[in-house]
Amino acid sequence: MSETASEEGFDRLVARIRLNRHADPATSYVAKLTARGRAKIAQKLGEEAVETVIAAMGNDRADLIGEASDLMFHLALLLVDAGLTFDDIRAELARREAQSGIAEKASRKA
Amino acid sequence: MSETASEEGFDRLVARIRLNRHADPATSYVAKLTARGRAKIAQKLGEEAVETVIAAMGNDRADLIGEASDLMFHLALLLVDAGLTFDDIRAELARREAQSGIAEKASRKA
Amino acid sequence: MSETASEEGFDRLVARIRLNRHADPATSYVAKLTARGRAKIAQKLGEEAVETVIAAMGNDRADLIGEASDLMFHLALLLVDAGLTFDDIRAELARREAQSGIAEKASRKA
Amino acid sequence: MSETASEEGFDRLVARIRLNRHADPATSYVAKLTARGRAKIAQKLGEEAVETVIAAMGNDRADLIGEASDLMFHLALLLVDAGLTFDDIRAELARREAQSGIAEKASRKA
Repeated sequence: MSETASEEGFDRLVARIRLNRHADPATSYVAKLTARGRAKIAQKLGEEAVETVIAAMGNDRADLIGEASDLMFHLALLLVDAGLTFDDIRAELARREAQSGIAEKASRKA
Repeated sequence: MSETASEEGFDRLVARIRLNRHADPATSYVAKLTARGRAKIAQKLGEEAVETVIAAMGNDRADLIGEASDLMFHLALLLVDAGLTFDDIRAELARREAQSGIAEKASRKA
Repeated sequence: MSETASEEGFDRLVARIRLNRHADPATSYVAKLTARGRAKIAQKLGEEAVETVIAAMGNDRADLIGEASDLMFHLALLLVDAGLTFDDIRAELARREAQSGIAEKASRKA
Repeated sequence: MSETASEEGFDRLVARIRLNRHADPATSYVAKLTARGRAKIAQKLGEEAVETVIAAMGNDRADLIGEASDLMFHLALLLVDAGLTFDDIRAELARREAQSGIAEKASRKA
């Protein structure tokens, strides 16, 4: 996988979910889950997190990759349902990183 | 945030966690949680997922962004602890997308 | 523990939580968590469930007993907050058991 | 429901699960889930906790009773799988209550 393709993965996932959420619920999982509403999307996210926790306690890398991928997929679906994208998450993480850098500098001066 | 910086966000997070996990647990959250072991990392991931589920049921966008960011941070920490990166997740999601494309083509021919 | 005391355990827990929820939040955990509201009670229940899941994956019986006790405690707290008791749960479980008995009889006749 | 029948609810559930866990997995849910192993039982417990959290955020009492009953059922199933009963949980809760009474007395003397 080229570097560029790799970097774009999660944003393409969001774009694909956006396209599919108004597709036919009979053929599209994204459309079907979206139609069931926010609580069902949140429930699925929680369930995939439980499976990721359990996979994390074992030694099967492929299992952990599979469950973490399910978690990312449903997080993307939830973000789209709330009108958000991964850029909102990246911006928040960058804001926190900047803050912790300032705190770290302050503690060195003290 | 420039487009490029944006795209690189999650991989920079992974790189930063890799750098910090052997830092001083007294000053680094990443080092402290890593030192407590896999079960504690998994526990934190599960707890952040619960908070994301609850935020998803409310109407506060900033709250959901905050909890989803906590979830992404701890997922990154878990992946690093297991010797994985987000590229492993992107590759798995790409593999599934390719498969579902094949299934979709097959169903059109049938 | 006498048989009777044992049987009454969970109902005494509910009675004690009812007494304590309007106590001083500075000295009563039940009062403090109740004051923080339904979402925080639900969050704690979810977190204790995650810890029970992780304990269930290990081999430490005392750890599992401890986490399952935390889970029962917070379930009791949530039920009280919603104006319910364990009798509501027992009645629902009894209703389901009766139904499954009827289904089982029907399948034997068929 | 008589007082006695009510008090016995959760212990009868445990007894019933013990009877059913070696039944035919084709007709018994308890036997089927037990055969899938500890990780699957833990996963189901976690999933029912997520559903209880979501029900707790809504206003539907019957929904919360239903989800909390599912949670209790799978907690009973997990306890039985680990060779435990609700008496182990009651004993732990009684031990904690005694301790907190001692702590409370000590703080009054101080």
